[in-house]
Amino acid sequence: MNPVPRLSLNQETIKQWSLPELVEGCVKAGVTGVGLWREPVQRYGVQAAAELVRDAGLTVTSLCRGGFFTAIDPERRAAALADNRAAVDEAAALGTGTLVLVSGGLPAGSRDLFAARERVADALARLAPYAADHGVRLAIEPLHPMYAADRCVVSTLAQALDLATRFPADQVGVVVDTYHLWWDDTVAAQIARAGAGGRIAAFQLADWITPLPEGALLGRGQLGDGSVDFRWFRERVDATGYTGPIEVEIFNPDLWARDGAEVLTEIVGRYRELVL
Amino acid sequence: MNPVPRLSLNQETIKQWSLPELVEGCVKAGVTGVGLWREPVQRYGVQAAAELVRDAGLTVTSLCRGGFFTAIDPERRAAALADNRAAVDEAAALGTGTLVLVSGGLPAGSRDLFAARERVADALARLAPYAADHGVRLAIEPLHPMYAADRCVVSTLAQALDLATRFPADQVGVVVDTYHLWWDDTVAAQIARAGAGGRIAAFQLADWITPLPEGALLGRGQLGDGSVDFRWFRERVDATGYTGPIEVEIFNPDLWARDGAEVLTEIVGRYRELVL
Repeated sequence: MNPVPRLSLNQETIKQWSLPELVEGCVKAGVTGVGLWREPVQRYGVQAAAELVRDAGLTVTSLCRGGFFTAIDPERRAAALADNRAAVDEAAALGTGTLVLVSGGLPAGSRDLFAARERVADALARLAPYAADHGVRLAIEPLHPMYAADRCVVSTLAQALDLATRFPADQVGVVVDTYHLWWDDTVAAQIARAGAGGRIAAFQLADWITPLPEGALLGRGQLGDGSVDFRWFRERVDATGYTGPIEVEIFNPDLWARDGAEVLTEIVGRYRELVL
Repeated sequence: MNPVPRLSLNQETIKQWSLPELVEGCVKAGVTGVGLWREPVQRYGVQAAAELVRDAGLTVTSLCRGGFFTAIDPERRAAALADNRAAVDEAAALGTGTLVLVSGGLPAGSRDLFAARERVADALARLAPYAADHGVRLAIEPLHPMYAADRCVVSTLAQALDLATRFPADQVGVVVDTYHLWWDDTVAAQIARAGAGGRIAAFQLADWITPLPEGALLGRGQLGDGSVDFRWFRERVDATGYTGPIEVEIFNPDLWARDGAEVLTEIVGRYRELVL
């Protein structure tokens, strides 16, 4: 199979696949990159996963995910930092230079988004040098504003860059994910800002579909099924000089209920039609 | 009952009440303002509703809602404008100077948010003079970004102001609604901008609670049940010189299932505790 240019499959998109099935399916489909998640990698064994992927000639484009830095309690903060150092170690073992961070939401009872974002900055300051020593860059992912309370107090690309630019560009970057950013009329300017500063650590795709499911977490759309203009995004990201992987990351029970190979064939087709 | 300073009850918050029950309940609770919705007012009769509210000494602080301006098809656009002129007439008959507008989402199959927002501007240009002639100001309501696809392509206060400021301040203003704007780290600056330009046409309150229900429409929280810092918002709005009504607008089936008077008592208590 001819390789599909730049395409990376995030593991969670076809989570019905085991890690060996994922690797085999990507090789068959000509997909040369994979984005991995910590939990299934840990279950399989980090070293074994690293060997499996490397032996198949695949590149690990990112590891999801670290973060959850917004706790106030000192013990919880220390535990989060320890867990993130472990995530850095895992990323290094897997051979990826990109650890995706989801910042965390508001602690129970708190209404202070500003203070929560400062705690994220504080954690980044502690974690970034450790990550850099291991060849791993932290990638701050702004999540859609609907997750600001319970998942991620960093809601826009501008906010993510405001945080990232407190640190060297080779230590802290940002994730440009269409699902989270598509609605924002300032996103083109912020993509240009991110690219000019060398801050684009990952570029992820999912479509926006409605109605949102309960909890709003598992309602991402297959490319082309929703409101996102993918070529518009890809052209703006590429215009900054970004030539890295383009990772498809979709959380959708309908895709998980289908045959994995069929889903991947559909993704490759949509990607060629709508993204490249 | 002593009047509750500035508080207005949006009708939809206690929609289990008929219009006469709403009026009676507000008078009993010392709530001097009501925000009304077109559909229940039309069912009761616009003139009869106007008399009922006026005779009780209540002020109509806003009428919800006009808008839905994003259609491409000329016939649909003409129909939307005609319907909005009717909404203006109804607002004038009810004695309120504020017609809340929800802009509309993306038309089926469209992925062009920019063009949709321009169609909103085009409709405003046609509607604003008519509204002004009737003593009604159009109030652009930015809705949370999670509604950008299916309900409102205007997602931030900055966007709403970018639209409003194309028109005279006495013709087009904006709605500051905590539910839609609480997550935005630029909202303090945009509230100041709105106030300095005399653009704050309405100030509405609801809390942000999670998890979101399916469809994300009816999950607004009672004041104090979620993540919003109401006093922070109220102080920033007031700092601009705004002295107008503060309208509580909550869509929540749990509130609708309860005794209306009990819900209003709770709202008044939370308002005194958390907002004033």
